[in-house]
Formats: sequence, structure tokens, C-alpha cells
Amino acid sequence: MKLVSLISFTLFSFLFYSQHATSEISDSSFIRSIYTTALTEGNAYEDLRFLCKEIGARITGSTEAQMAIEWGKDKMDSYGLETKLHEIQVPHWERGTKEAFYLKSSNGTHIKLRGLALGGSIGTNGTMRAELIEFESLDALKISDSEVVKGKIVFVNQPMNAKQIQTFKAYGGCYPLRGNSASIAAEKGATGTIIRSLGLASDPHPHTGSMYYKEGVTKIPAAAICTADADQVHDYINNNSKEKIELIMEMDCRSFPDSKSYNVLGEIKGKAFADEVITVGGHLDSWDTGEGAHDDGAGIIHCLEAFRILKKMNYKPNHTLRLVFFMNEENGNKGGKTYAKWVKENNEKHFAAIESDRGGFAPRGFTCDGSETDIKWLTSLAPIFKDYDLHIFEKGYGGVDIGPLKDSYPNIPLFGFVPDSQRYFDMHHSPNDIFENVNKRELELGAAAIASFIYLLDQKQP
Amino acid sequence: MKLVSLISFTLFSFLFYSQHATSEISDSSFIRSIYTTALTEGNAYEDLRFLCKEIGARITGSTEAQMAIEWGKDKMDSYGLETKLHEIQVPHWERGTKEAFYLKSSNGTHIKLRGLALGGSIGTNGTMRAELIEFESLDALKISDSEVVKGKIVFVNQPMNAKQIQTFKAYGGCYPLRGNSASIAAEKGATGTIIRSLGLASDPHPHTGSMYYKEGVTKIPAAAICTADADQVHDYINNNSKEKIELIMEMDCRSFPDSKSYNVLGEIKGKAFADEVITVGGHLDSWDTGEGAHDDGAGIIHCLEAFRILKKMNYKPNHTLRLVFFMNEENGNKGGKTYAKWVKENNEKHFAAIESDRGGFAPRGFTCDGSETDIKWLTSLAPIFKDYDLHIFEKGYGGVDIGPLKDSYPNIPLFGFVPDSQRYFDMHHSPNDIFENVNKRELELGAAAIASFIYLLDQKQP
Repeated sequence: MKLVSLISFTLFSFLFYSQHATSEISDSSFIRSIYTTALTEGNAYEDLRFLCKEIGARITGSTEAQMAIEWGKDKMDSYGLETKLHEIQVPHWERGTKEAFYLKSSNGTHIKLRGLALGGSIGTNGTMRAELIEFESLDALKISDSEVVKGKIVFVNQPMNAKQIQTFKAYGGCYPLRGNSASIAAEKGATGTIIRSLGLASDPHPHTGSMYYKEGVTKIPAAAICTADADQVHDYINNNSKEKIELIMEMDCRSFPDSKSYNVLGEIKGKAFADEVITVGGHLDSWDTGEGAHDDGAGIIHCLEAFRILKKMNYKPNHTLRLVFFMNEENGNKGGKTYAKWVKENNEKHFAAIESDRGGFAPRGFTCDGSETDIKWLTSLAPIFKDYDLHIFEKGYGGVDIGPLKDSYPNIPLFGFVPDSQRYFDMHHSPNDIFENVNKRELELGAAAIASFIYLLDQKQP
Repeated sequence: MKLVSLISFTLFSFLFYSQHATSEISDSSFIRSIYTTALTEGNAYEDLRFLCKEIGARITGSTEAQMAIEWGKDKMDSYGLETKLHEIQVPHWERGTKEAFYLKSSNGTHIKLRGLALGGSIGTNGTMRAELIEFESLDALKISDSEVVKGKIVFVNQPMNAKQIQTFKAYGGCYPLRGNSASIAAEKGATGTIIRSLGLASDPHPHTGSMYYKEGVTKIPAAAICTADADQVHDYINNNSKEKIELIMEMDCRSFPDSKSYNVLGEIKGKAFADEVITVGGHLDSWDTGEGAHDDGAGIIHCLEAFRILKKMNYKPNHTLRLVFFMNEENGNKGGKTYAKWVKENNEKHFAAIESDRGGFAPRGFTCDGSETDIKWLTSLAPIFKDYDLHIFEKGYGGVDIGPLKDSYPNIPLFGFVPDSQRYFDMHHSPNDIFENVNKRELELGAAAIASFIYLLDQKQP
């Protein structure tokens, strides 16, 4: 920025600030009340406990997912929202009852490994065994010779990059590993694949998640083993290069025909622009291990509690505020895609959308996938949120569920809630993603931040 | 700020930035290396595990405290620091082996309460029982009539204020409750006192901490019960106003004569200003419950790891960097006071001091107890730390241990490291303050932030 521009900008900011001084004082007291309600009369923690403990893990197509849908609608009803269910078609995959993974060496060494089938994988059809071959990365597998891979079980041991400060960047770098390893290995003639779990800690929790079979490829079983075991397997292979090392595995997971499910919607009608919608949500489904506490129970509860608080404070929004519990974010995103198509077909106007799907940790801020003007508006919020320890207000990702709205409304701003990311991948998609690992105050502060953000967005001039 | 000042400030900032562009690039790469070392070749987590699990809780005067001193010196030696022990005299209080707390009502109701004697309290000399009287706050106790208090056990049930966003502010509001309840109650003729634990969560962990007897007052036993039990007692009293409700308690804690202990010091000599010292530290002692993991194991480890990293990177500081593990922060601050006196008597020059004593959570920034110039320098660091998610750079508290340096050096800037505060009071001074509740990456990021801060401070022109 040139000096002259800097001065002009300063002048502009100064005048802009003076003009809005009165409304900021009122914003400030409204936001203070939101936070006080969340922290002293909050329902967030108890609502999350119920979702995690009385329903539990809720993978698309399961009875638990259906119970979560009914719970979601009942909850929204009880908080005074106008609710409805939107039918969608979703994939249906089940883990089954058998999962076993062993390393066996020709010298008799036997190591039990802690693993989970990846979502979408086929089963092994009984016990499966083959020589194990390790690759340090997905790229190393890609450039490998088919002759050395053929007939073997491939182990892709690529760690998330611990140097990244924001853990989601490290996750992004390893994401293709989970989705594509099986197809790439199968094209080279492998009979199965295991990957290092996508997590930064060295721990005993395997992390599942979606994998996909490339069109036309032979489907082979795919699983993830925990990082601690991945390190052990690596060390064993390195220290016993003369032994023949086998992997023995059994999984009876399988896919079923698509089934019927629902997005859950709850509205507060707008008073000034009732036909312009602000969509706020997270995803109601979770993986089938743990309790989906941070992913995305916390996100669902953030948004539910935000609506409850705004209702309780008798806030009459300008725009129509619509809370959406999306189904099937984890393995197909059918909820997000169907919703975007439906609102377009109904010729709805959409003002903006907000998503919470990065866990229930202490809030850091919001990112915006939108125009320069939208991002400028977002950054202008920083002073308002300073006392609440929020500081990230910048261009960035919106979210998986609200993402498809961009196809229908290219100019819509999508906002993503950003909590602290350091602990997220200790739990994500693993048996460790349980209620006990969510902190009450951190969850409440997230709900307050989102309620405040909805309010400010609703007050924003078009 | 007036418009003219704003423009001048903008001009100044612009020129200042241009002038420092080169050094900022070099700072940036040095700091990146610090973070990479902390996150990929860190010793912090293993060092904290050892301190927590192989030594454990280490109250002043205990064998564990002595083992921690020896461990500290050995660690500093092994990391290449020039070490020494500084003898100090410290109080010596022991919890003993008996702690029991019951509510007993005239209708036969019996409720076991989870409590801990407050540090410094006398014991009960066998079983003690008296009618229980509740006050909602310390202020309510202060203005109460002696006639209604006399002969009873006083229960001060003042909760921390959940509305506060920064939990240390809520703690500050309740701090006098723990220190002074016994003396105030004793002056009104009470025979004992229990307080609501200083914690925000409703949970089963009692929180201990220091209490003091006012000169000349009759000493009465003082304990804290967990917040969950405090709520239960409150409800019981309210719902059974016609019953006589007694508290029955036993504690055999007691004080011993002062004993000998040590601060542990380790230095890296400065090359340009060897006679000017930057003191960096936390406290090595802890309460005698839990493992002192966050309070202040994490702080000790932050600073130790920062020195290890700077040494490993072969950094040659301008000033003499001195790492201090202070003893006896928890119940007397004899370490901090004796250190400040000693450096003054030695006519040392002191450039600055940094303390970490707010837990091992994700870093948020630094506060400064110093001049306007010092605070201005601190705020100028914000852009450097933006990529590392630090955002608090403002006037504020330094720390208990480095605080007495102000008496010796009125102009010294004291800097306090600020991690996220939301979970701290779930653990603080309780059996819940254990290693398992410290996250590896959060701890490592704290060490990296402090190492980077030491570097920037050392590079600062006087």
C-alpha cells in the first residue's frame, strides 16, 4: 500500500468509525448479553452430552443417525424454531463386527496392530494375508514399480507435517493419502492397503475417514492403523530387512444400497428481508467410532445454542435465519449438495452462510470465502471481538456443507468458524472423539461467538 | 487519537517498517527454525512427563521438591547451561495423612464431601464438629453478625464469575476468599471454615492453595470442598432449613520450622552485554496434590526447552540469558523475593524478565508490566507472531516470581507469557493437574513462543 493510499484509508476509517460509533455501543452490549447467557445459562454442554451419550456415533444410514435427526427436530421445536425435515438419499456403509490386523514375521514375531477400516472399503472376505511393503508417502507409492507392489499389502506411512502451525494445513497435505491410496495400490496389483492414521500425536487411536475407489479399479480392502503402531511397523521393517514380513487382516465391512435420510431445518423468520436467508449449520452425521463429539457434535451444538440464545433474547432478525443440521458430510456430502440444489430450485435468495465444523475448542475467529468487500467487512469485526479473544478475521475456507451453495449463488459469502486447531487431530474420526474431550467453557464460547457473528451479519447492510 | 496524530502515526509506522524490513526477514527465518525444532525435535513433552511422573507433586520443603531441584540442575547441565543453586529458606507445611469432611443433618442425612486442607492451615486435632453456616460471598461474611457465626463452621460459597472471558480475572475476584476467610471467620468466633473451591467447572476436584492467618487471630482449620459438593451443600441447606446441619471434619496438616531449599539457575553468557541479564523462569515447586503439570511444570518446561533450543541452534545472545527455576512460589514466594534481593546485592544490571506461570495451553501472546516504551515495543511484535496464532501483545501482568525484581529495579520491564486460559482452573491446585491434561503440541508451541520472544528481546536495542 502506498503512503497516499494509507492516508486516505486512515481518513476513511476515521470517518467510518465516527459514523458507526453509536451502533457499535449497542452491538457491544448485545454481544455482551449473548456471552453472559452462553456462559451462565447455557444449554450447550448438556445438549452435547445428550447427543454423544444418549445417541452416540451416528454414521449416515444408521439407526443412530435417524435418532439424531429426530432429536435435532425435537430440540429445534423446543427452542421455538419453525422446523422441517428435508428428505435426501445417502450412502450406507457398515463396519461390521470383525476387524483384526497383525504383523507376522518369518522369524515368528507377531505384533497386534490397532486399526480401523476406512469408510467405503470392501471387506476382506475372511482372513487375508500377504507380504507387507512400506512407502514413506503417497508420492513414493505413485512412482513405484508395479512389479514390487504386485500381490502385496501396501503400507503408506506418510506422517502429517508437524511443522505446520495450523493443523488443518497438515491435514490437507495428507488428505489424499486416505482417499486414494487403495486405488493407486490396486492399479499396481496390490491386494490390500493400510495407511498411517491422519493424526499428529503418537498414540493408540486409529483414525478412520472416507476412501474412494477410482472408476474401473479392482476394489481392495483399506484400513488405517494408529500412529504408534505405524511407527512400530516402520521400525520393525527397518530392523529386520532379511525377514519376510506379512500383514494378516480381517474386516467384514460392506456397502448397502443408498437409503433415505434427512437434513433438519429450523427457522426464525426475518422481519425486514424475510425472503433473504442466512444459513447456519454443521453436520449431524459422524463417523461410527467415538461419539462425534468434536466432529461435528460441537458444531451442531454451537449453531443450535446460538439460535436458542437469539430466541431467548427475543431477537427479531432482519433476514430469515435458518439453522441446518446437514446429514452425510462424512462420506458423500449428500446433505450439503441436496440442500444447495433445493434452495436454488425454490428460487430462494441467499444472503450468506456460516458453518462450524472444526471442533469445539476455544474460538479464534472466522474466515470468509467471498468477495473483497465481504472480507473487508469481516476484518472490520476484529475490534468488536477483541475482548472475547477472537483475532482471526481473514479470507479463508467456509465449509464442506455450505460449499455447494457457491454453485447456486456464485456471489454468496461463506463464513467458517475457526476454533483453536491444536487438539483437533488427536480426536478426529477416532474412538477418542468423545464428550469428555470437549471443554464446557470452550464449547460455550464457540456458541457465543457464532450467535454474535449471526447478529452482526444480520445487522449488516446489503 | 486525533486525525492529525493518526496520519503522523501512519507516516511513522511506514518509515519504521521500511527501515526494519531486512532485519524482520532474518528474524522471521530464525523464528521459523525455533518453531520447527520445538515441533519436530522437541524434548518438552518428555521432560514434563519425567517431572510429573518420576518426581510428581513437589511442595516446598518436601523430598520431591529436593528431587526436582536436583533434576533441574542436572537437566540444565545436560543442555549446556552454566548452572548453580542458590540457597533460600522456605516454609514447610505438610498435609498429613487424614482428611475427612461430612455433612450431617439432624434428620440423619449424611453426605461425604470431597475436600482438601488449604495450605498453611492448622489441623483439627482429631474430629471436629460444629453447626454449619453458609455465606454466599466473603463480603457477606464480613458484614455478618458475630453472634450468628460464633461457635460454628463457616462455609463461604462464592463462585468464580463465569461471565469473565479471561478466567484469571474471575480467579482474581475470588482469590481473597481462599486467603482470608479463616481469619475473618475466626474474628467472629467461628471454629473452622470451608470454602467453595476456586474453579469454574462443576466437578469433583477440590482445589487447595494458600491461606494466611492474620496476626493475633485465633487459628482455625480451613479447607476447600469441590464445586460439585459446594452446590450440593448449598441445596441441602436451602431445602432443609428446619434441620440442624453439622459439618464434621478431620485434618492432621501442620507446619514445621522453615527449611533449606534452592532456586536453580542456568546461564548462557552474553557476548555484547554480558553484565546485563535477562531472567527467564517459572516455579519449580507445586501444590502437593496432582502433579503440578500445568502449575507450573509447563512453565518450567517452556523456559527450559526455550534455552535448550537456543543452545541447540548455537545462538550467541547479546545479553546474559539466565534461566531460573524459582522455589516456593505457591506458599511464600521466598524464591522470587530472595532472588531479587540477591541480584541487587550483587549490583547486577537487569535488562528484562519473562515468566511463564499460566499453564501449558495454546499460546495467545505476552503482556508487559513496564513503561509506555516497553509496551510499544511489545505491540510491535504482533505482525511477527501472526503466523503463529499469537495476538495478545499489551500492558499487563508479569508474574509472581519476577515481580520482586521491580522493587530492586523500578524500570525493569516484566513480561508474562499468556496461553489460552479457558481450561486452567479445571486443574489448578487440584488432583486433576496431571501430565495427561497437558497437550503435547500446545506445550511445544509455548516453548517456541518463549524462545522466539527471548530472541527478539535479546536483539532489542537498549
